[in-house]
Amino acid sequence: MIRVGVVGATGYAGEELVEVLLRHPEAEVTSLSALVEKEVPFSELYPRFGKKISLVCGNLDVDEVSADSDLVFLALPHTVSMKIAPRFLKNGKKVIDLSADYRLPPETYEKWYGTKHCDTGNLSDAVYGLPEINRDTIKAARLVANPGCYPTSVILALLPIAGWLAEAGVEAIVDSKSGATGAGRKAVVSLSFGEVDENLKCYKANEHQHMPEMEHVLARAAGADVRVNFTPHLVPVRRGILSSIYIRHEGLPGEDAIHKMYEDRFKDEPFVRLRPAGQMPQIHDVAGTNFCDIGIKVARGMLVIVSAIDNLLKGASGQAVQNMNIMTGLDERMGLI
Amino acid sequence: MIRVGVVGATGYAGEELVEVLLRHPEAEVTSLSALVEKEVPFSELYPRFGKKISLVCGNLDVDEVSADSDLVFLALPHTVSMKIAPRFLKNGKKVIDLSADYRLPPETYEKWYGTKHCDTGNLSDAVYGLPEINRDTIKAARLVANPGCYPTSVILALLPIAGWLAEAGVEAIVDSKSGATGAGRKAVVSLSFGEVDENLKCYKANEHQHMPEMEHVLARAAGADVRVNFTPHLVPVRRGILSSIYIRHEGLPGEDAIHKMYEDRFKDEPFVRLRPAGQMPQIHDVAGTNFCDIGIKVARGMLVIVSAIDNLLKGASGQAVQNMNIMTGLDERMGLI
Amino acid sequence: MIRVGVVGATGYAGEELVEVLLRHPEAEVTSLSALVEKEVPFSELYPRFGKKISLVCGNLDVDEVSADSDLVFLALPHTVSMKIAPRFLKNGKKVIDLSADYRLPPETYEKWYGTKHCDTGNLSDAVYGLPEINRDTIKAARLVANPGCYPTSVILALLPIAGWLAEAGVEAIVDSKSGATGAGRKAVVSLSFGEVDENLKCYKANEHQHMPEMEHVLARAAGADVRVNFTPHLVPVRRGILSSIYIRHEGLPGEDAIHKMYEDRFKDEPFVRLRPAGQMPQIHDVAGTNFCDIGIKVARGMLVIVSAIDNLLKGASGQAVQNMNIMTGLDERMGLI
Amino acid sequence: MIRVGVVGATGYAGEELVEVLLRHPEAEVTSLSALVEKEVPFSELYPRFGKKISLVCGNLDVDEVSADSDLVFLALPHTVSMKIAPRFLKNGKKVIDLSADYRLPPETYEKWYGTKHCDTGNLSDAVYGLPEINRDTIKAARLVANPGCYPTSVILALLPIAGWLAEAGVEAIVDSKSGATGAGRKAVVSLSFGEVDENLKCYKANEHQHMPEMEHVLARAAGADVRVNFTPHLVPVRRGILSSIYIRHEGLPGEDAIHKMYEDRFKDEPFVRLRPAGQMPQIHDVAGTNFCDIGIKVARGMLVIVSAIDNLLKGASGQAVQNMNIMTGLDERMGLI
Repeated sequence: MIRVGVVGATGYAGEELVEVLLRHPEAEVTSLSALVEKEVPFSELYPRFGKKISLVCGNLDVDEVSADSDLVFLALPHTVSMKIAPRFLKNGKKVIDLSADYRLPPETYEKWYGTKHCDTGNLSDAVYGLPEINRDTIKAARLVANPGCYPTSVILALLPIAGWLAEAGVEAIVDSKSGATGAGRKAVVSLSFGEVDENLKCYKANEHQHMPEMEHVLARAAGADVRVNFTPHLVPVRRGILSSIYIRHEGLPGEDAIHKMYEDRFKDEPFVRLRPAGQMPQIHDVAGTNFCDIGIKVARGMLVIVSAIDNLLKGASGQAVQNMNIMTGLDERMGLI
Repeated sequence: MIRVGVVGATGYAGEELVEVLLRHPEAEVTSLSALVEKEVPFSELYPRFGKKISLVCGNLDVDEVSADSDLVFLALPHTVSMKIAPRFLKNGKKVIDLSADYRLPPETYEKWYGTKHCDTGNLSDAVYGLPEINRDTIKAARLVANPGCYPTSVILALLPIAGWLAEAGVEAIVDSKSGATGAGRKAVVSLSFGEVDENLKCYKANEHQHMPEMEHVLARAAGADVRVNFTPHLVPVRRGILSSIYIRHEGLPGEDAIHKMYEDRFKDEPFVRLRPAGQMPQIHDVAGTNFCDIGIKVARGMLVIVSAIDNLLKGASGQAVQNMNIMTGLDERMGLI
Repeated sequence: MIRVGVVGATGYAGEELVEVLLRHPEAEVTSLSALVEKEVPFSELYPRFGKKISLVCGNLDVDEVSADSDLVFLALPHTVSMKIAPRFLKNGKKVIDLSADYRLPPETYEKWYGTKHCDTGNLSDAVYGLPEINRDTIKAARLVANPGCYPTSVILALLPIAGWLAEAGVEAIVDSKSGATGAGRKAVVSLSFGEVDENLKCYKANEHQHMPEMEHVLARAAGADVRVNFTPHLVPVRRGILSSIYIRHEGLPGEDAIHKMYEDRFKDEPFVRLRPAGQMPQIHDVAGTNFCDIGIKVARGMLVIVSAIDNLLKGASGQAVQNMNIMTGLDERMGLI
Repeated sequence: MIRVGVVGATGYAGEELVEVLLRHPEAEVTSLSALVEKEVPFSELYPRFGKKISLVCGNLDVDEVSADSDLVFLALPHTVSMKIAPRFLKNGKKVIDLSADYRLPPETYEKWYGTKHCDTGNLSDAVYGLPEINRDTIKAARLVANPGCYPTSVILALLPIAGWLAEAGVEAIVDSKSGATGAGRKAVVSLSFGEVDENLKCYKANEHQHMPEMEHVLARAAGADVRVNFTPHLVPVRRGILSSIYIRHEGLPGEDAIHKMYEDRFKDEPFVRLRPAGQMPQIHDVAGTNFCDIGIKVARGMLVIVSAIDNLLKGASGQAVQNMNIMTGLDERMGLI
């Protein structure tokens, strides 16, 4: 039995982590912490956990949590994680960080997150927790940087052709649509029901902080620069990201050839599913699951790739548990199927 | 041309008022004010008004607004209106207040809104702006208290039988369902899309501050006490209130008799529509309109009355403009059909 | 390992059954059938089952399904089940029927479902599958009639006071709000997104076919007639039923006393959760779970009871699996927590 | 007063037409027709029109409708309009057709709509009813082909740079997101609330029948071929289209230069609003209006253009009334602001 602590349990990702871990046959949640006014039973904060969990959620005490845990999930805002993670690592605990703090080289991090990185020592050891790329290094990692939700949906969708993109110097144009939980549990007017419902909007076109994460990871996978132009949109669903990716090039391989590249790359992946050529996934196919579904199609000389994930699962907490499974030698799918 | 000022133009009700007034052939919006950091063109705050209105929205200056207006709408939070209204009245302006500040006797107000009323002088002159009851007194009013959204939906639904309810000592049980704009434009987690979407909840059962408003107004209409038990619910729609009302009594008249009471009461009302007996209205029938639609049915000895309104129109800004039309001698339906 | 067949696998309840059963450690789905044009892999019909299930969904062959199953779930339309169930029973299979066909006495069935019952023999042996009432008889049952979604939400909410209601001759007034999947997967304009979204409507007030089911079951539990006035509403959520129940009586016990009755009745129930007095459940608390959450409150002499369930789980497929667990001697909670 | 008939009044576009025309000060709706079982008051079919319109909706009688009308709107399915329009034209009536039947050259029509055009005579005289391009020819037109919803949103967004696109041989990549009313009022499972809510999906990538309409119209405007790659998505809103357009080219002018091209092109257009450079429109800005809002931004060498319309207004019925205003010499904005 792996004893785990969830730090930042009251946000959407933290709550989802608890949900997934409660179903996991080999994990035991031993502590829940968050910024709360006073200790309170978690099932009082979130009644959906009544008769399922009796833990109290209190403010974080790193040593206390360490004493009860083999592994700790940090579901904290970026810039906060990098202050907390080193203390757990020093205590000899494995850490899976769901924030952006350990995903990027320090200079890129500073540029996009507006603050100097304060834990560059651990940063250089951190492993980017996308199992489809780094399964082997995740196995041995002490600190895993769990990927962002948008990057998960885009990197997986481009992975089989990343080498070709790099070589041919072709850019990918990515139009992503995300549900509102992707922005976290926040008291802001722009996320209120009255503003989001019956609305669609584009934001941070080609300026979103997840774009450098995509390019950084794809470049490492391809061995050369890959250019991704990324425009996210907010849509009125609670969960889910649909990324539509457009690639135009005269040298584009045919649909069959591309489909085969995807098939070869993903056929043994437990959480990536490829649709038959020409068929596209939708959010309903993946909501509530840890799968990333991918469809590809070539029409009029344009390659369209569509990927769908649940932003709170494969885009956050499900993937974090997948990483935990790998780090602890369990069946990667445990608790997730 | 009636010159009007809108005070509190940035909330949902204020924004809707501007929308309605722009379509009104005999009203000219001369000023918009709200709590803003600095003066800003209204169409910059709300781009939906681009190429429609060129007014700037600034902080309130009562004398400046008074100079440009014959009539002022106050779309302010309760407890704020009663500090502002007297200053406009002193300047000789007609005032339509959309808050709760002038709807209740002072002691009831204090009990339900938790603060002493500070303008009891004008309060005693204020006319409750439900045209279906007070059309004649509204005509001559200087200060109209525009009804609450829930009360509009419930009072109209009970009006034709209020006398019978009072006489027979029968209580009405009201289950109302409201869209999220009813709570205003606010930065609170509980109104965020992630919390409201795919959710339903009951709140303040038999303790909502709109309940005394219903009972007060119905009692005055009936000439004796009418008891209303009122439980509101939040549902994931932007606009609309559906109120389902249940009445059980051995002495209940038959469906035909009750239907006739409603027909007689409302047949000349421009904004109340009665369905054939047994048919019920839905939100889609009234969304975007100033109508209150009502259906009645008797089955197994129980009377079910269902009313539907758009909470931002008949429940707030539409009704406010209806009141303006009456106060200024215009066709009551002007700008609203 | 219990071998189960799912008949009617393509509707919302059938699909949800497959979902739940795949996570169940002691059940193995051995066949899926439905009205389909030709045999097709289930994961092709519903890609969310890709890499999870490899079964093909074909038209029903009772003997074939019987050969592979210990127990069969029927997720069929009412009036169809009663033609199929006897054939499985004859083959010695246990049957859990999710339709209305085995829930009511034959004359009540005929009155509300408009057709004569054609399997009255098995009907008289069928056990109403609400574990909170019939746990012991379910254990030994060959044929379980899985309760309706509305009845589950209402019967559980009234169960602790059913005796008092019967004795005092007090009626319950029930206002239920259901998500759209409750109506099934159907091609009708009235269930289309354009008609349901941003809409609320009341239907079949005091005339819904689930009302006699509530009264029948509560009367048996109370030992005397219980009167329920029931009005359902359609609201724009996918899943979930919130039932608000109103009870007025001079002889009403106090809130504490009532709360204690509920506490005593439900404290050992694995899937019913009672809120502290005065607190009400919401759909988010139960969506995706097999729980029924209940809140009670007394204010101004009126008792308000609110219950929340997921219509596809505790209201259908989750409860069916709970019944399977009981019938087969497994831990009742297996696969459901 | 212009007398108008609405043929096909029961679909979403037809219903919206009636709504807009009722507010129009110079138009009188004289007849409503549709495929109905028997004549029925329109306000009985759609209670939202109660106390607003007393017309009966019956099956179409071309001569009767002609007798009462100066102008007829056809809100019919494609392939139906081309059988009806010629009969009204023969009767000397002006026709505004909302279907696709008169928008394309016959061979393109046949290719994309799968049927031979049966009224090529009138087709060659028809004017494409996008006022921003064809205002002058619309003035004199007898038959106007009202543009499709997607094409309106895309053509307007590309119009100011169509010449440059053609000259530079640059393709536009268009990712459009549409609300569900765009698919019409239909009884199909895939449009049901249970399937559309909380879902996002891509369909007909680079194969949608609106793509040739965009290319045909833009090519005529540019004087040379313009290539548009178009992928539509269905999103869970009732109304609205947001089109995000991506253009990559080394020769791309700077943001200021492009913004000025848009400003110059649209500054006098009553129903196109350009945002300040870098700001993007959203659906809420245009829902319920006849505006097309456009934002542009250049970042990392990519031009992003976002346009937003209400698919039932500027994308259908609002634009149809705008065309009526132009054809009849009225102020183009009448009834639409």
